[in-house]
Amino acid sequence: MPFKLTDELLEQVQTLISESKDAELRTLMKEFHYADIAEIANELDEEEATYIIKLLDSEKTSDAITELDEDVREAILNNLSPKEIADELEELDTDDAADIVGELPKELVKEVISEIEDRDHAKDIVDLLRYDEDTAGGLMAKELVKVNENWTVTRCVKEMRTQAEEVTRVHSIYVIDDEEKLKGRLSLKDLLTVSTETHIREVYIPKVDYVNVNEKPEEVAKIMQKYDLEAIPVVDEIGRLVGRITIDDIVDVIRDEAERDYQLAAGISQDVEADDTIWELTRARLPWLILGLFGGAAAAVIMGGFEEMFKKYTVLFLFTPLIAAMAGNVGVQSSAIIVQGLANDDIKGSIGNRLIKEMLLALLNGIILSALLLLFTWIWKGDFMTAMAISISLIAVIVVAGFIGTFIPLFLDKRGIDPAIATGPFITTSNDIFGILIYFWIAKLILGL
Amino acid sequence: MPFKLTDELLEQVQTLISESKDAELRTLMKEFHYADIAEIANELDEEEATYIIKLLDSEKTSDAITELDEDVREAILNNLSPKEIADELEELDTDDAADIVGELPKELVKEVISEIEDRDHAKDIVDLLRYDEDTAGGLMAKELVKVNENWTVTRCVKEMRTQAEEVTRVHSIYVIDDEEKLKGRLSLKDLLTVSTETHIREVYIPKVDYVNVNEKPEEVAKIMQKYDLEAIPVVDEIGRLVGRITIDDIVDVIRDEAERDYQLAAGISQDVEADDTIWELTRARLPWLILGLFGGAAAAVIMGGFEEMFKKYTVLFLFTPLIAAMAGNVGVQSSAIIVQGLANDDIKGSIGNRLIKEMLLALLNGIILSALLLLFTWIWKGDFMTAMAISISLIAVIVVAGFIGTFIPLFLDKRGIDPAIATGPFITTSNDIFGILIYFWIAKLILGL
Repeated sequence: MPFKLTDELLEQVQTLISESKDAELRTLMKEFHYADIAEIANELDEEEATYIIKLLDSEKTSDAITELDEDVREAILNNLSPKEIADELEELDTDDAADIVGELPKELVKEVISEIEDRDHAKDIVDLLRYDEDTAGGLMAKELVKVNENWTVTRCVKEMRTQAEEVTRVHSIYVIDDEEKLKGRLSLKDLLTVSTETHIREVYIPKVDYVNVNEKPEEVAKIMQKYDLEAIPVVDEIGRLVGRITIDDIVDVIRDEAERDYQLAAGISQDVEADDTIWELTRARLPWLILGLFGGAAAAVIMGGFEEMFKKYTVLFLFTPLIAAMAGNVGVQSSAIIVQGLANDDIKGSIGNRLIKEMLLALLNGIILSALLLLFTWIWKGDFMTAMAISISLIAVIVVAGFIGTFIPLFLDKRGIDPAIATGPFITTSNDIFGILIYFWIAKLILGL
Repeated sequence: MPFKLTDELLEQVQTLISESKDAELRTLMKEFHYADIAEIANELDEEEATYIIKLLDSEKTSDAITELDEDVREAILNNLSPKEIADELEELDTDDAADIVGELPKELVKEVISEIEDRDHAKDIVDLLRYDEDTAGGLMAKELVKVNENWTVTRCVKEMRTQAEEVTRVHSIYVIDDEEKLKGRLSLKDLLTVSTETHIREVYIPKVDYVNVNEKPEEVAKIMQKYDLEAIPVVDEIGRLVGRITIDDIVDVIRDEAERDYQLAAGISQDVEADDTIWELTRARLPWLILGLFGGAAAAVIMGGFEEMFKKYTVLFLFTPLIAAMAGNVGVQSSAIIVQGLANDDIKGSIGNRLIKEMLLALLNGIILSALLLLFTWIWKGDFMTAMAISISLIAVIVVAGFIGTFIPLFLDKRGIDPAIATGPFITTSNDIFGILIYFWIAKLILGL
């Protein structure tokens, strides 16, 4: 039952296209969900994909277009006339339509918009273009059901019926005043049990969750998750109801944000996918590697400063990769917990307390790990003092690494900078350098060099 | 308007509890959403939190209990009698109720279940306990609206009305046959426009997405995201409709999975939060650090084998942290892209092609980075041959690191093991060792030692 894109199916589609068997193609595609059509189109070449989109009904292809990979969508839209694009937009909800218009070349936008027959729809799309993509306004759709508090139940039911036709999923009925300000929401049950001449202002529920147009998408996601909402109204600076955000858009926000944080932690700086070109992947990865290279060069220079120790205590140098690795690991662990805690609003209390806790934790881990290392080095090299020096240095390195890993994301967050950039290579590299510096310095002190 | 948990509010609540001002507490809490009450209770001590839960209506506290931190919930439930727990369960949807029962001590379960007055509700909860937490069955609720294909529209509307009372959000009306097998779904609009004596089998839509009870939560999440579903029916092995999963539960699945992958990549092995105790955090972090320690010790032993090179080519040793860091960074980047690609079903084509692509990418990055390093080392130390040896080794190390980072997660995935465990410390540590080994081996070869 579930759709599966097989090589056979893909071949069948390609053959039907090359032989222009339109009727058969239509019959075949009729069975598929728009998300499946998008999956097929992603695998076709530009001409084939365009052929499919032109062949099928806008009602189906419009949604498929929103689900396409961005580069495929761009290529297909390039092959469509402004009128054809307008036909697709006509079928879409305003938020999806605005997203597509936002991707069009600037010189094309005006023409496409003017071809949209439903002028209210066109107006709504243009309104949405004004909002920054990274705000609640950039996420919301104009489709919603709203009633005026001064209407009677009779009028309300009549108006709702017209509005609901435009809205795929109603979720909630919002109540506004004459100035379009959001006043509350309406329970369908209440509406059906009161007299038809009652005014809405007597029956509506004044308690309603909402967000401001300028709210960040992540904040909207948090609110909708916390209160288990499937839709939330959006108001402008003076409280007027301007749109509505539904949970499916929020699911995308949550997933995108998680992917971004994950990529930052792994040292990948842009939104890339496994199937991108080598060049795109290099651009996303090389900057962090160069950072690592500079860090490594700095570590080499630092170690160069301790070269005179080589002859007597070669063993110290054998453990530099271990020291660097431990400093990096502890730093990444600490910063990841802080970044995740900040994202979930789990970080309470002062920065001072947080740092003390993290350093106690690092101390505990450091003592256990150092005891193991002491045993290993002592047995291996038979020199207790050197083993002791290495182990004590390791404790210091781990405590400092924990401090840095905790402090940097907290500091960035206080400054309004996304703390997630402090995970991954950034922390690893700085901890490598500090770790090696502390290691040689303490070892030198203990061994009395 | 949005709720904010301030220190003043917390103090006010604590004072009201200590002075037993029940009426005032009730009035204060009446304004709050259950998720806010949970947020308050999480910050109170055990007695205070229990006091609040006992004081307020089960209708509100039941949902608050599901939102509590796990340890707080456990403590509160410990202080409630079986009857009191049953009262809370009575108010909850079956999926949430089953989750709570699953957390209760075994000896208590029978007693609590027997105290539930609504026997159908109790039966549904017990049914749900049978399913593995990590399946669609473990996620689903029993609350849904279903009608028999042999009913007339009149009977259908009557039955739907009764069923809908139990269901918070209806989403869809499912159609079953006499054997409870899922046949399709019903459009409310169709239902209202046909004659009341029509049979459901003549009007229902036979196309409906569903999942099997044994499906993994991540698969359910993928299907619901792909098809923009807000609810999906769950069927058993022989196609009988047994439950329904709603989007709010899927949002939790997506978030939990993202957090887990992120923590694995950061070297944190259990689901911990910033506010957990030092002991819990140590248990989650120490295993990976010990792995890193072993890796570091192995690197030390390897380097020890090249000790005779020390006198002549000390400079080689200065660059071991750089080599280890680059091998680790490249490995983590490669594995993170593969893990994310696998999670999103983006990885198409053979493993062989994937490995060739990754190695070409690593080669490109390696050449750029090595050129930079060559320049640096040559200028710093003035010895072209050594600089050359280090740089060529770096290219080899980066290519191998890319290969390992790509191969291991693909291999684990083929074997049915979660590839995410191969990110973070695991890749870093193995790449450190391989990197250092390759580095000294190639340098030795080039310098003719």
